Amino acid sequence: MTKLWGGRFQKSAESWVDEFGASIGFDQQLVMEDIEGSLAHVTMLGAQGILPQEDVEKIKWGLNELRKKAEKGELEYKVENEDIHLNIEKMLIDLIGPVGGKLHTGRSRNDQVATDMHLFLKKRVKEVVELIEAFQKTILEKAEQHIETIAPGYTHMQRAQPISFAHHLMAYFWMLERDKERFNQSLERIDISPLGAGAMAGTTFPIDREMTAGLLGFSKIYENSMDAVSDRDFIVEFLANSALLMTHLSRFAEEIIIWSTDEFKFIELDDSFSTGSSIMPQKKNPDMAELIRGKTGRVYGNLIGLLTVLKGTPLTYNKDMQEDKEGMFDTLQTILGSLKIFEGMVRTMTVNTKRLNEAVHSDFSNATELADYLATKGMPFRKAHEVTGKLVFKCIQKGIYLKDLTLEEMKEESELIDEDVYEVLKPEAAVARRLSQGGTGFEQVRKQIEKAKECLK
Amino acid sequence: MTKLWGGRFQKSAESWVDEFGASIGFDQQLVMEDIEGSLAHVTMLGAQGILPQEDVEKIKWGLNELRKKAEKGELEYKVENEDIHLNIEKMLIDLIGPVGGKLHTGRSRNDQVATDMHLFLKKRVKEVVELIEAFQKTILEKAEQHIETIAPGYTHMQRAQPISFAHHLMAYFWMLERDKERFNQSLERIDISPLGAGAMAGTTFPIDREMTAGLLGFSKIYENSMDAVSDRDFIVEFLANSALLMTHLSRFAEEIIIWSTDEFKFIELDDSFSTGSSIMPQKKNPDMAELIRGKTGRVYGNLIGLLTVLKGTPLTYNKDMQEDKEGMFDTLQTILGSLKIFEGMVRTMTVNTKRLNEAVHSDFSNATELADYLATKGMPFRKAHEVTGKLVFKCIQKGIYLKDLTLEEMKEESELIDEDVYEVLKPEAAVARRLSQGGTGFEQVRKQIEKAKECLK
Amino acid sequence: MTKLWGGRFQKSAESWVDEFGASIGFDQQLVMEDIEGSLAHVTMLGAQGILPQEDVEKIKWGLNELRKKAEKGELEYKVENEDIHLNIEKMLIDLIGPVGGKLHTGRSRNDQVATDMHLFLKKRVKEVVELIEAFQKTILEKAEQHIETIAPGYTHMQRAQPISFAHHLMAYFWMLERDKERFNQSLERIDISPLGAGAMAGTTFPIDREMTAGLLGFSKIYENSMDAVSDRDFIVEFLANSALLMTHLSRFAEEIIIWSTDEFKFIELDDSFSTGSSIMPQKKNPDMAELIRGKTGRVYGNLIGLLTVLKGTPLTYNKDMQEDKEGMFDTLQTILGSLKIFEGMVRTMTVNTKRLNEAVHSDFSNATELADYLATKGMPFRKAHEVTGKLVFKCIQKGIYLKDLTLEEMKEESELIDEDVYEVLKPEAAVARRLSQGGTGFEQVRKQIEKAKECLK
Amino acid sequence: MTKLWGGRFQKSAESWVDEFGASIGFDQQLVMEDIEGSLAHVTMLGAQGILPQEDVEKIKWGLNELRKKAEKGELEYKVENEDIHLNIEKMLIDLIGPVGGKLHTGRSRNDQVATDMHLFLKKRVKEVVELIEAFQKTILEKAEQHIETIAPGYTHMQRAQPISFAHHLMAYFWMLERDKERFNQSLERIDISPLGAGAMAGTTFPIDREMTAGLLGFSKIYENSMDAVSDRDFIVEFLANSALLMTHLSRFAEEIIIWSTDEFKFIELDDSFSTGSSIMPQKKNPDMAELIRGKTGRVYGNLIGLLTVLKGTPLTYNKDMQEDKEGMFDTLQTILGSLKIFEGMVRTMTVNTKRLNEAVHSDFSNATELADYLATKGMPFRKAHEVTGKLVFKCIQKGIYLKDLTLEEMKEESELIDEDVYEVLKPEAAVARRLSQGGTGFEQVRKQIEKAKECLK
Repeated sequence: MTKLWGGRFQKSAESWVDEFGASIGFDQQLVMEDIEGSLAHVTMLGAQGILPQEDVEKIKWGLNELRKKAEKGELEYKVENEDIHLNIEKMLIDLIGPVGGKLHTGRSRNDQVATDMHLFLKKRVKEVVELIEAFQKTILEKAEQHIETIAPGYTHMQRAQPISFAHHLMAYFWMLERDKERFNQSLERIDISPLGAGAMAGTTFPIDREMTAGLLGFSKIYENSMDAVSDRDFIVEFLANSALLMTHLSRFAEEIIIWSTDEFKFIELDDSFSTGSSIMPQKKNPDMAELIRGKTGRVYGNLIGLLTVLKGTPLTYNKDMQEDKEGMFDTLQTILGSLKIFEGMVRTMTVNTKRLNEAVHSDFSNATELADYLATKGMPFRKAHEVTGKLVFKCIQKGIYLKDLTLEEMKEESELIDEDVYEVLKPEAAVARRLSQGGTGFEQVRKQIEKAKECLK
Repeated sequence: MTKLWGGRFQKSAESWVDEFGASIGFDQQLVMEDIEGSLAHVTMLGAQGILPQEDVEKIKWGLNELRKKAEKGELEYKVENEDIHLNIEKMLIDLIGPVGGKLHTGRSRNDQVATDMHLFLKKRVKEVVELIEAFQKTILEKAEQHIETIAPGYTHMQRAQPISFAHHLMAYFWMLERDKERFNQSLERIDISPLGAGAMAGTTFPIDREMTAGLLGFSKIYENSMDAVSDRDFIVEFLANSALLMTHLSRFAEEIIIWSTDEFKFIELDDSFSTGSSIMPQKKNPDMAELIRGKTGRVYGNLIGLLTVLKGTPLTYNKDMQEDKEGMFDTLQTILGSLKIFEGMVRTMTVNTKRLNEAVHSDFSNATELADYLATKGMPFRKAHEVTGKLVFKCIQKGIYLKDLTLEEMKEESELIDEDVYEVLKPEAAVARRLSQGGTGFEQVRKQIEKAKECLK
Repeated sequence: MTKLWGGRFQKSAESWVDEFGASIGFDQQLVMEDIEGSLAHVTMLGAQGILPQEDVEKIKWGLNELRKKAEKGELEYKVENEDIHLNIEKMLIDLIGPVGGKLHTGRSRNDQVATDMHLFLKKRVKEVVELIEAFQKTILEKAEQHIETIAPGYTHMQRAQPISFAHHLMAYFWMLERDKERFNQSLERIDISPLGAGAMAGTTFPIDREMTAGLLGFSKIYENSMDAVSDRDFIVEFLANSALLMTHLSRFAEEIIIWSTDEFKFIELDDSFSTGSSIMPQKKNPDMAELIRGKTGRVYGNLIGLLTVLKGTPLTYNKDMQEDKEGMFDTLQTILGSLKIFEGMVRTMTVNTKRLNEAVHSDFSNATELADYLATKGMPFRKAHEVTGKLVFKCIQKGIYLKDLTLEEMKEESELIDEDVYEVLKPEAAVARRLSQGGTGFEQVRKQIEKAKECLK
Repeated sequence: MTKLWGGRFQKSAESWVDEFGASIGFDQQLVMEDIEGSLAHVTMLGAQGILPQEDVEKIKWGLNELRKKAEKGELEYKVENEDIHLNIEKMLIDLIGPVGGKLHTGRSRNDQVATDMHLFLKKRVKEVVELIEAFQKTILEKAEQHIETIAPGYTHMQRAQPISFAHHLMAYFWMLERDKERFNQSLERIDISPLGAGAMAGTTFPIDREMTAGLLGFSKIYENSMDAVSDRDFIVEFLANSALLMTHLSRFAEEIIIWSTDEFKFIELDDSFSTGSSIMPQKKNPDMAELIRGKTGRVYGNLIGLLTVLKGTPLTYNKDMQEDKEGMFDTLQTILGSLKIFEGMVRTMTVNTKRLNEAVHSDFSNATELADYLATKGMPFRKAHEVTGKLVFKCIQKGIYLKDLTLEEMKEESELIDEDVYEVLKPEAAVARRLSQGGTGFEQVRKQIEKAKECLK
């Protein structure tokens, strides 16, 4: 077959070389954007008088026909036509004849593929943001149900201080809020039109880049044609934002997995989001959480992959850049799927409030209360810390908890301790009293949830 | 020695365990921020009546003394005091007595270290932005001198189309502009106060987080105390933005290196930014460009390093997070140094305009002109491309360039070609005619430079 | 549909959760290994009297039928059967009835999937080694043709010393030799049977692991069943070895690209391994070299991806591990394709010996000769270096080369220089004289090639 | 000051450029190797008659003086002398006069630095192997004490089957055994001498590379001088092997952390390997395990960092390669420290055998026993799995375990179940019966430990 760029070439590449170099296997995902971009381009060519209106109409008709077929999944792509751009152009020429060849006037594959990518990612980042919001909403609802559910709070995976379970869940709300912020801000760098940059130098045809940008819904155009065709920052940025999103999901997943153990039993996942074992009938595995935790790896990998591709490549377009796509598609699919699954998993999980409550009543997570109590009575904090440490040690030796010490036993370490200490040691009280802004005190958590609701409006 | 948290512990860690766990070796870089944070905290403790004003004054006096010493580099840190926070606190107690222990009231190392990091990075990101602007300014000045310097433009490292050398330089201006945008936007997530989040649950003391945030110049506070102490997003984001910046520098460095070869000779670096060889006296190596290209690796590594640290860690603070610092310090030093060096390297380099001009006159980079010429005369672009390809092939066989073909030779391939083709084939004309927005046409480049100047105001 | 592990579950997962969790989309590549493993397992079950011979025969017949279908590509996999193992088992039961369910006696999916992966990778690593050898052979042949082709040698991309072009090519031979070594050594850790490890604890059935290992051609068995099902080291090792291989190819690719520029013109790629431009008819782009350089990114990404997956996962099997496959398949396809393409590209490329020869005669790469000449005459090397440096500088000012200096001009810098210096300055002589072991002297290069041939025997 | 390579340069670099380019800040760690390499080189220069014996003696005397000072830490390095090589050379010249300049005859910094790195890493990899063995020994000892300690075995962090705790520990033994294998095999590519490769082309001096290799204890020499100075594979391989080692430690660390929670309480870490909290007196944090888990990040980062440095760099030496060192030093320090700490942590930890035993008696990890029991009685495994699943579900509804079901209740699901089932359901029996090779059966674990002892001989 004849390559569209084959004029000066004497030998045709062997087919397996073709296959190695072809991108049609994955860039066909850009078919809608490619046609959309071409429609805008040819409309402009007509408006500027670069092509006669008659040709423009033929081309638009042909492109629209191809679009209909694409929607129905009826287009047949060929590896020898390399990529989505040449495939579509070839189909167009087959459909409407040589006039189809005029579509490429004043354009190059270099600005064309960049345009497709910008159009594609702009659309999808908006979807990502929507799914993040849906997940935030679910977290919020779950949190609202558990404001007064007391749970152990951890640092170093050791019981630290009792908290409101809602407060714990809400921590993820704010992580996602930052993810949303980052994705939204990245749109400023995605929503730019490279169309009209040509191969890299611009074109001699009197094209109107603002017009095509407008037709395609772009907010602005690239100011430098060489930058326009070389820039893949917006994809790296998408991957970096996705890597952080997955980091958050991996942290939440880890907690879901730990909370689901026999030993913790803080939550139970719905059957829909668990699986069994082919050999151990009793198992109820938090597979989805594990899988999402694992999928973090591929997103980190895709990020480092594209950074590596770009490192040290000279301007402008180099074939290396073809490698920008698969990692992006894979990442997109991964984060969309992970968000959707995670939302369902959290929405349907059962929080074992009884178990959480028991847990908090039989541990030393109220030790800080005692230290603060002493500090409030005037003892320097470091001293209060030490006294409490000694009382904790005394309890461990006796196999009891702080509330089980007699007042005398406590007074042995400090005369400042009085009857009112027992009230202080109650976990409910401990949570309730943490009323510093953003703290876990019930009242504060309620305020926090109200603020969070504002973010979703 | 007595650990500040040693109350319930029976054995003291062996010193090499201490050393492995200690962070004072690197987190001493946060000394100013640590003292600053403590000053704000204790001021608030006084204002809220949590500590008597007398104690507050003593502590402030002590902290100010330590600050003076720190400025002079006179503080002596000890590994057994683990980190910057305990070192400073110990020094304070040594200086003003047990009252120093009250400073930690209503605070934990978890919110303290987060505060230090936010303060530190906020300051430094602004420095980064300033250095980016300084570099942009230099690029702009260099570009202004070379608007009419014609140079070969490349795709796939093959001569593609003649361009204005200014246009090429300006491509980097816009990359840096995006870097600036990203760093600036990241400030929204750096400029938040975690102070008052306590260990992770907030505190029972009636602290005023808005007040400390205000004293420290933060725009807002974290809404959730667990998030406040767990969040390291802002550092990942800094590393990701730095990775992209280094990607840009690595691409520019690659070009500098290639342009400096004997074969290209497009530029000559100043002696100040080159080095010689210990064995080959004729060498003038573009060491700084190579080194910066190489340093891209460590920044990518630091990014993947922190992402790995955070992957799958449960809330809230885990010791793993101590690993957030070295990669950040190293990255900061790397990008500040690289920007400074690159600015000097570009400012002092000599552009070999004569060589660039010769290059453009003896190649096929005007082939697109011919194809466009034919397209303008009504030939479908794909056909025009093919005809030009044949003429190029004819030239290669004869060892001549397109301008050296006779009109007859050209007409053999297409009757549409006429005498006016010779004007079209001149590289100066080729550049001048590329007047599409953002294109390399001289007039467009001038406009571009004007727009760029707006960005620096 | 009924899940094979669904006994205790009340709700069936929604289909999109199924889809997210299913691996059949990619692990169907393991179909042959899965059947092979099952055949060995059931044979052993019969030999050990765990299953009656009659059942064994039925199951073997069924598996063989499925294998035939698989070879013809006639198996139809279903997402609701999750993975290749359950798909095959379900098909088997459909084919031979409930007795098919006995195949899984004394086995778990955990040891089964590990077995498949070991079998698969063992086979493919051998293919990789073969392709490396084929490429080494081509390099060797090309080198043999260019032993006496003198070319500039570079450090820092600056002309350093003249070399034999064969010597340059042979550097890649040795890199590939190390790659081969590493892949071969990794086989020691791939060629181990996990079959019989069960879910992770072994089994109560009197299985014979040595027997299945023998049937499958494994050299040894895992000594610990928990390790057997948790271990993915062998895949990480494969990815790390592949990353280094790609690093080598990326370096070679970079050189091919640079050598193909108009400015260097050291080689010309065959049309089969180049492509044209859709807009610039004169272009002949080294696309394959660029693409392979770019594909380095995805292999690095796959490596970091799997490392991330494994980081911090507790024993034994976790669903995260399902993520071990796609990166491995993708890497395998990438390196097999890259090796094949690179071999063809090097085999068919034309070395522009004339251009190389000219290059070497008009540069300062003979400066070391002069310095060595002075050192041989007794001048301390550092002084000789300095004198040569001054002479080079003198030449640059005059626009000439060292050989063009008169003896007088040279003597001005050192009286040690004599008439015989002109012979020393000839690049042919410079190369010929570098007879240290492994050096570029023609005789040494011949020896080197002979040694290399030994490696391929 | 005068640069050693400054002959042709007109301007001296500004000092901050010097500083950016200098490596003396970190490569001073190579001082011993650098002197050792120089001693071998100059000895050979004498033996080959390239330098008069008198000069050789002077140089050796000087180098030995410098070595003594280096041992005492008395050398003062200067940034303006760039790197360790020029620093030492300058000191040598200062000490013995201009004759010191002759040391560099027939050598370049390019082969010199490569030699230093090979010498350095060879030594340190052996240390790593020793520490791995020490850790293996500790694991073995701990395992021997816990062969009959029954513990829950997990997949997906869900109780799966009861195991011998020794078996669990031994899984890490085998991971470390593979690490050892890989480090040992990598020595084949570290233990090669690049000395004598010169700048990259070899040298015209009649050097004897086998002699220097012999003096330095290298097994062989690089066959190609260009490869010798360009090769950094051996460092990448070291980093990749270290990344896998850290992966193993991160998995073990994760388990240590989880086992140390209040909820699991399977082990208690010794105070020496735990730390407290500055605010919560009851805390005993598994800091060392967390820190090691976190440090995995920096090793992954260092690996990806060096791979990035090397990607796409042309032959031979480029300044980028200076970036090979810091990541290697940092990784080395990290893995040596982590191994040492981990060994101590495991050696001193207390295994809570009582708690482990209780855990195993109150869960469903004996469900596989029941399924296997049914399968042994002739039920197809899939059916046995389903029946067991139903019985588990029945128990969960009643809040009891399998052993608590009456025979009647069991028979409702299958008539095959008989009185002997209760023996089968005992966890001790379950473990004891898993006698497949490499399984958790006590007898098998004993055999495994014997085999492991063989590995340490």
